[in-house]
Amino acid sequence: MIPQGFQVVAVEAGFKPSGHCDVALFYSPTPCNAAALFTRNRVAAAPVQLGRQLLAQENAQLSGVFINSKNANAVTGEQGLKDARQTSKWLTESLGGDFLVMSTGVIGVPLPMAKIRTGVEKVTAAIKAGENAPDAAAKAIMTTDTRPKVANAVFLIDGAEVRVWGVAKGAGMIHPDMATMLSVILTDAIVSSKELDAALRKACDDSFHCVSVDGDTSTNDTLSLLANGASGKSMDTPEHHKAFQDALDYVCQSLARQVAFDGEGARHHVTLKVEGCADAAEARQIGRTIITSPLVKTAIYGRDANWGRVLAAAGRSGVAFDPLHASLWFGPLQLLKDGAPVPFEETRAREVLSELELEIRLVVGEGAGAATLWTCDLTEEYIMINADYRT
Amino acid sequence: MIPQGFQVVAVEAGFKPSGHCDVALFYSPTPCNAAALFTRNRVAAAPVQLGRQLLAQENAQLSGVFINSKNANAVTGEQGLKDARQTSKWLTESLGGDFLVMSTGVIGVPLPMAKIRTGVEKVTAAIKAGENAPDAAAKAIMTTDTRPKVANAVFLIDGAEVRVWGVAKGAGMIHPDMATMLSVILTDAIVSSKELDAALRKACDDSFHCVSVDGDTSTNDTLSLLANGASGKSMDTPEHHKAFQDALDYVCQSLARQVAFDGEGARHHVTLKVEGCADAAEARQIGRTIITSPLVKTAIYGRDANWGRVLAAAGRSGVAFDPLHASLWFGPLQLLKDGAPVPFEETRAREVLSELELEIRLVVGEGAGAATLWTCDLTEEYIMINADYRT
Repeated sequence: MIPQGFQVVAVEAGFKPSGHCDVALFYSPTPCNAAALFTRNRVAAAPVQLGRQLLAQENAQLSGVFINSKNANAVTGEQGLKDARQTSKWLTESLGGDFLVMSTGVIGVPLPMAKIRTGVEKVTAAIKAGENAPDAAAKAIMTTDTRPKVANAVFLIDGAEVRVWGVAKGAGMIHPDMATMLSVILTDAIVSSKELDAALRKACDDSFHCVSVDGDTSTNDTLSLLANGASGKSMDTPEHHKAFQDALDYVCQSLARQVAFDGEGARHHVTLKVEGCADAAEARQIGRTIITSPLVKTAIYGRDANWGRVLAAAGRSGVAFDPLHASLWFGPLQLLKDGAPVPFEETRAREVLSELELEIRLVVGEGAGAATLWTCDLTEEYIMINADYRT
Repeated sequence: MIPQGFQVVAVEAGFKPSGHCDVALFYSPTPCNAAALFTRNRVAAAPVQLGRQLLAQENAQLSGVFINSKNANAVTGEQGLKDARQTSKWLTESLGGDFLVMSTGVIGVPLPMAKIRTGVEKVTAAIKAGENAPDAAAKAIMTTDTRPKVANAVFLIDGAEVRVWGVAKGAGMIHPDMATMLSVILTDAIVSSKELDAALRKACDDSFHCVSVDGDTSTNDTLSLLANGASGKSMDTPEHHKAFQDALDYVCQSLARQVAFDGEGARHHVTLKVEGCADAAEARQIGRTIITSPLVKTAIYGRDANWGRVLAAAGRSGVAFDPLHASLWFGPLQLLKDGAPVPFEETRAREVLSELELEIRLVVGEGAGAATLWTCDLTEEYIMINADYRT
């Protein structure tokens, strides 16, 4: 169930083959407090540039988020900015309020404005007709995703339900080249834009930043959070605020895991725990190097307990540690103890690596710093998908 | 022709299937001045640790370099160090002098010392029998390489030939996870160890560092240079020194290109020119992000002129530039001009991308900083090779 007072719709605008929705609108008739985190890529897509301007305004409020798939409106020059601005203008003309526009798909091709115009007309008509189709919207924003990604959390304040609900798209096969990650999170809690921003940054650190490296992003990545206050419940006590942050953390982590595990062509869901570091930042740094290593990811695909590649990746992460104090496990199987290989049965290792879920645990010292990260394996299918993406 | 006074031999020691040499010795009866650059990976293999100690000694001289393939002797604990030391001790007992030992292959498996012993006995016997088989040695050190890599340069000093000759192994498909890069370069020039070190660092910057990122390396990477002085010609004038540096640069660049283009499963040889930067370091930084992008590399494999991925990679390189001043070419085809897409015919783009050689040129501004880098495309074969590497 989406939070109260929101409407989420999806339509066919001709970006995808007939029968597939490709444009979605997340809408609230009551303007929302809002926060968003955008890509740090120097080549920011037109909608990202506009979105930054919009949210930089004093007391900015959003009536909704419009997303088209299949065209990123990135590296499209001045025309791209005009096109993004026109999209949002059409929405305002029809529904009033301000809209964040997001695009995902091929880079460097002008946005086909006839299709956008069709999309705007159809979504606004659907909104006016009172439609609500959140699952269709989760599908409409997909590009190379193999499945839609939805998460929600509900908590009670004085017996009343407060909801946090979100969708994401993106298939994080090889970070830092992950497909564009877009996410829209809606809540009916009463929260100021400033508090939304702080809560979103915190939630992102332990979720989306654990499947991708902060700063190494695509041209369009955007994570947005809209609060329309329709629950009537304010997060103005420490307990209420904690309940809201927990719910937001949960939704972000669930979506991030879904992105990580829906790697293009993925066959394994990998959870990596890095422990024994000086602090969490160092643990994340080691972990990010491991989860982005093609050699580690192909070995897991091949069900090959080639753990040396995990340690070699840790070794080039830039974090200082003593290999003679490193220990490593694949699932229940210890492979390295204080820097020395532990003999293991190949058949046992194959068994562990035949499961869909694989937990890798690396302890590099005595420190309290730890991090959990998620990724998937790397398969031939990734190559096939990405060799033919545009044509 | 290898430089005067050197012997290069290869034998079968049982690491590879029967019929394939897997151990090589590069030898000079006259001890050599020497320099070497080692991996900066925190998890340095045992032979790297020993090699660093050996070359850190005042007036260190080498009689040769011993290489085994198929086992990296990395993450093998204290036993690994003992095994590497024992290998070099056996060589000294048989031939005298000091030896640099290198290993490449699987990580985390103890070095099989019976095979090493066989290898040492056979190579020293081959040396004593006066054998010389440099091409066999270039093959013996291969792991996932599809072809041996040899380069040489000859220049004249007062009418006498001075030679620089080298071999390398390594298949740099996805840096920074490239397979171990090992290289042995021999010269009969008279050069001090200190000058060798400076010359090797300079040569490496414009060669091996343009296919891989300095610091992001495997556990075993080693680039070594031995000078036995057998030409009788000293590099003691600026002209002679320049002739030597030019020859060394040529050999290193040729070997680096061979490594880059022998990516596991590669179908395209890609030369990337980045221009218009503040300095060469910034150009290299942008270039390295592009040549390591799996999305760029799969698009090239798919003959897809998806140039937006090139620009998106540049955008996350950490170098500041204005996308509205960026221009891009694939071969003769301009795809981007001052930040705006240039319409092009898909059939023409397919033609350009059907060639084995592809030159990509990216101009990001008005600066004089430029760099040339080399890479290859990313194909399904890479996955197949690396999923099954160990088992």
